[in-house]
Amino acid sequence: MALNLGLLLLLFYSSYSCCLSFSESATGLGSSSLRFEEKPNFVILLMDDMGWGDLGVFGEPSKETPNLDQMAAEGMLFPDFYSANPICSPSRASLLSGRLPIRNGFYTTNKLGHDAYTPQVIVGGIPDEEILLPELLQKHGYRNKIIGKWHLGQQPQYHPLKHGFDEWFGAPNCHFGPFDDKKTPNIPVYKDADMVGRYYEDFLIDRKTGESNLTQIYIKEATSFIEAQTTKGQPFFLYWAVDATHEPVYASRDFLGTSRRGLYGDAVRELDSGVGEILATLQRLGVDKNTLVFFTSDNGAATYAKTNGGSNGPFLCGKQTTFEGGSREPTIAWWPGHISPGQVSKQTGSLMDFFSTFLDLASIPAPADRAIDGISLRSALLHSNVTDRPIFYYRGDLLMAARLGQYKAHLWTWTNGLEEYHKGIDFCPGENVEGLTTHKQTNHTDSPLLIDLGADPGEKYIIKPHSSVYRKEMPAILEAVSKHLSGLKPGVPQLNWCDSAVMNWAPQGCEKLGRCLPAPKSQPYKCVWPH
Amino acid sequence: MALNLGLLLLLFYSSYSCCLSFSESATGLGSSSLRFEEKPNFVILLMDDMGWGDLGVFGEPSKETPNLDQMAAEGMLFPDFYSANPICSPSRASLLSGRLPIRNGFYTTNKLGHDAYTPQVIVGGIPDEEILLPELLQKHGYRNKIIGKWHLGQQPQYHPLKHGFDEWFGAPNCHFGPFDDKKTPNIPVYKDADMVGRYYEDFLIDRKTGESNLTQIYIKEATSFIEAQTTKGQPFFLYWAVDATHEPVYASRDFLGTSRRGLYGDAVRELDSGVGEILATLQRLGVDKNTLVFFTSDNGAATYAKTNGGSNGPFLCGKQTTFEGGSREPTIAWWPGHISPGQVSKQTGSLMDFFSTFLDLASIPAPADRAIDGISLRSALLHSNVTDRPIFYYRGDLLMAARLGQYKAHLWTWTNGLEEYHKGIDFCPGENVEGLTTHKQTNHTDSPLLIDLGADPGEKYIIKPHSSVYRKEMPAILEAVSKHLSGLKPGVPQLNWCDSAVMNWAPQGCEKLGRCLPAPKSQPYKCVWPH
Repeated sequence: MALNLGLLLLLFYSSYSCCLSFSESATGLGSSSLRFEEKPNFVILLMDDMGWGDLGVFGEPSKETPNLDQMAAEGMLFPDFYSANPICSPSRASLLSGRLPIRNGFYTTNKLGHDAYTPQVIVGGIPDEEILLPELLQKHGYRNKIIGKWHLGQQPQYHPLKHGFDEWFGAPNCHFGPFDDKKTPNIPVYKDADMVGRYYEDFLIDRKTGESNLTQIYIKEATSFIEAQTTKGQPFFLYWAVDATHEPVYASRDFLGTSRRGLYGDAVRELDSGVGEILATLQRLGVDKNTLVFFTSDNGAATYAKTNGGSNGPFLCGKQTTFEGGSREPTIAWWPGHISPGQVSKQTGSLMDFFSTFLDLASIPAPADRAIDGISLRSALLHSNVTDRPIFYYRGDLLMAARLGQYKAHLWTWTNGLEEYHKGIDFCPGENVEGLTTHKQTNHTDSPLLIDLGADPGEKYIIKPHSSVYRKEMPAILEAVSKHLSGLKPGVPQLNWCDSAVMNWAPQGCEKLGRCLPAPKSQPYKCVWPH
Repeated sequence: MALNLGLLLLLFYSSYSCCLSFSESATGLGSSSLRFEEKPNFVILLMDDMGWGDLGVFGEPSKETPNLDQMAAEGMLFPDFYSANPICSPSRASLLSGRLPIRNGFYTTNKLGHDAYTPQVIVGGIPDEEILLPELLQKHGYRNKIIGKWHLGQQPQYHPLKHGFDEWFGAPNCHFGPFDDKKTPNIPVYKDADMVGRYYEDFLIDRKTGESNLTQIYIKEATSFIEAQTTKGQPFFLYWAVDATHEPVYASRDFLGTSRRGLYGDAVRELDSGVGEILATLQRLGVDKNTLVFFTSDNGAATYAKTNGGSNGPFLCGKQTTFEGGSREPTIAWWPGHISPGQVSKQTGSLMDFFSTFLDLASIPAPADRAIDGISLRSALLHSNVTDRPIFYYRGDLLMAARLGQYKAHLWTWTNGLEEYHKGIDFCPGENVEGLTTHKQTNHTDSPLLIDLGADPGEKYIIKPHSSVYRKEMPAILEAVSKHLSGLKPGVPQLNWCDSAVMNWAPQGCEKLGRCLPAPKSQPYKCVWPH
């Protein structure tokens, strides 16, 4: 596997492990006395391909997200919050493991620095060796539910109930389709371990109008779960992984045509309303002060989907790229009585921080036998403190960029290849920053491109290497990079092999429904990842 | 003068005058009973070259404008609010006259569709025939003060006290310099009719560090004026036209180095703090419920200034252009007790609406002998109603684009010429929308380029002419354009002639100070407007 960072970086290599260090440092900060109950509830409201710029509070001009804007007014906004990866499956694997995809195996070595995920044909998935957040919470008395998209593997051994969740309502993959159930089976929808139907057959999405009541189902699943646990006084973790803003975008009838932004905006409005319902349920049941809720998204908006995709606000490019538009997430924390209302955090955060934060707040020790990339945000949430920490922007197996403080160094640049681009697949529509939005994978490790994300969040102005700011800021970033790489033990890559036989032909439960489909013979092949 | 809109548009011409009609329609809507005092006070907080994306509430990632964000939380946000022109002098002339530059004379015919303003050598200025908002307010018992930049003409006959203001503290022009007082005099600073000093001589701006206490002076001028009028029970109009965010950007010592965004952000932070002081003064004096305050900016952020300029958020290009980045303004209305807190208006507004709105609220009849382009926002402010109205985007003498509802038609496109662009003057850094950000003045009047500003506020996706949405939306826009042009009587162009003799050599009051400079012989020449 190529981690080609050039001789310059090799000079900085040391045996010091940055990530455990950051984790420890954060734990140290989080030593304030607990004012909340011993086992607070945790909710993650994870959006799919929603962009930083899709919320009113983050500057969407139509301002159609009153519930999320209200959530921010009552909670804490994180303008500098990052995905662990610019695409879905690796980002979600990192969220639940607290570890970068390069560690948990959610990457490919088929092609240097190419994005990979878990389509229906993928053979791999989340390895048993990875310890997921729900597993640890479960061991300490939590009841965990995932609603919506799993995306950590199609095969049964990778499913949520094998990895710490007690309940599941949703699907292993995106709501792609409709398929013919001959060449490709429609994606199954599960209730816990058993299939209860399939997209486009039992769970309808009208591809012409975009109508579907899936989000309403997911909202009901969430409020029912919260109500059931609350009645029993049962600590819970709810992972609400809804997908209405992922192509094909959908919304239910009541929301269709209500947004100035078109169908995509209709979907945002329905999700916004769902967030409102979930927070209101927590308040109605009197558990809001004992429930930490995070709202965020899995990666940047899919700019290649044009107006069917979301907005990354002032940020460059989108999903699939390691520019800010691909990685910066619209993030809000809400915990009445503990997080002061109306705060804007200066903490640089990551989806991987949920892992460390929740464990810290529930007094559950983090695994000590492995590097954890998340840090606990306890001190940021409760005391508005800021912990210095780097952000590493990977694409597949390649470290493309690193941020420290408000500076970002691009070690490599790439959007996508010219052949794909000329076919109309554009990750940076209307944008063209010379030297940055390259259509060739370009190696800058001998003189990384420096950006001041404070003055230039849109990454338009590359700072000159002979400038004083470059000489001042670059060494610290490169030191963080070398520390990171020197302590890195890449996991076994999970996204190299594909096979039509592993598709969802006969999911568990299909017998009871009389809906099993015949699987083809196994013919594994190396997955093709075009960008 | 060329108003080249092609044969297609000529077909729509009629004798109907759209703008009077819109004005009347708005008056009709504003018939609710007054709950405020007969003569409410008015305050306009006008920023200079500040962009839509510079406020936290409009999505600036560092969120460094707590006072403005609070003003929005207590008032009404206008995400769809427009300048009357993408540069300073014409925009300001329109704000005070309620009329487009093409009517009030703030344009040039030296070159088709070129931006012009009032540099120190300009011969023209605001014509006596134009009736300015302060003139009408003054006649009806208001006391008016302008603090900061006037920009409606250098020569004494054009100065504020000749056009309805009772008091002035500020300058006729930008704080350019330092000059040598030989080839070019430094810009004078006036107190009322007399010069009290000059920039860089008496009013310091350190061009190396950016330090200047000018904003603090302007804040003190504002609070003192408010206090003086309030003590007397005197209705007032305060026009706070500060300029710290115009190049050369400046901030006072307490704010230098406090922003993550650099000097530009320091200036924004100081202005934000000034807004906080002004609103707090109104509250302390108990006149907040009788004072309507608008915050806005004169044009889009100067993107060509790179990180010394502001941010236009998700919008395309900036100052000098008729893309959204050049014209969309960060606008907040604040009037405790009358405007409900936390509102987001769906009204498409314009700087010219201040004219009609203030007259309406003060029960002063608008001039009936001329077209007024502003509409009264009374109904939008007090009842959250929405009035349909077009927005016309001019560059010099050329109508470049028109917006109606959420759709915008580009009749012409242009950024700047290639020669200038290759010298590094870039109005659209990092942006390149094929067919839109052209470096040639391109005439699209036979098939205007349609943009859906709801789904595509960044103007990235041109809607195809054969699409149903194009066929549905374009006729109404073209009808509004033809109505506008058919009723249009262009004013005498004021920005054609320049002359070194009219510069600020010997402003009134210079004798008392012993600071008069010898003027050169008059040699008028046609001003050169490069873009």
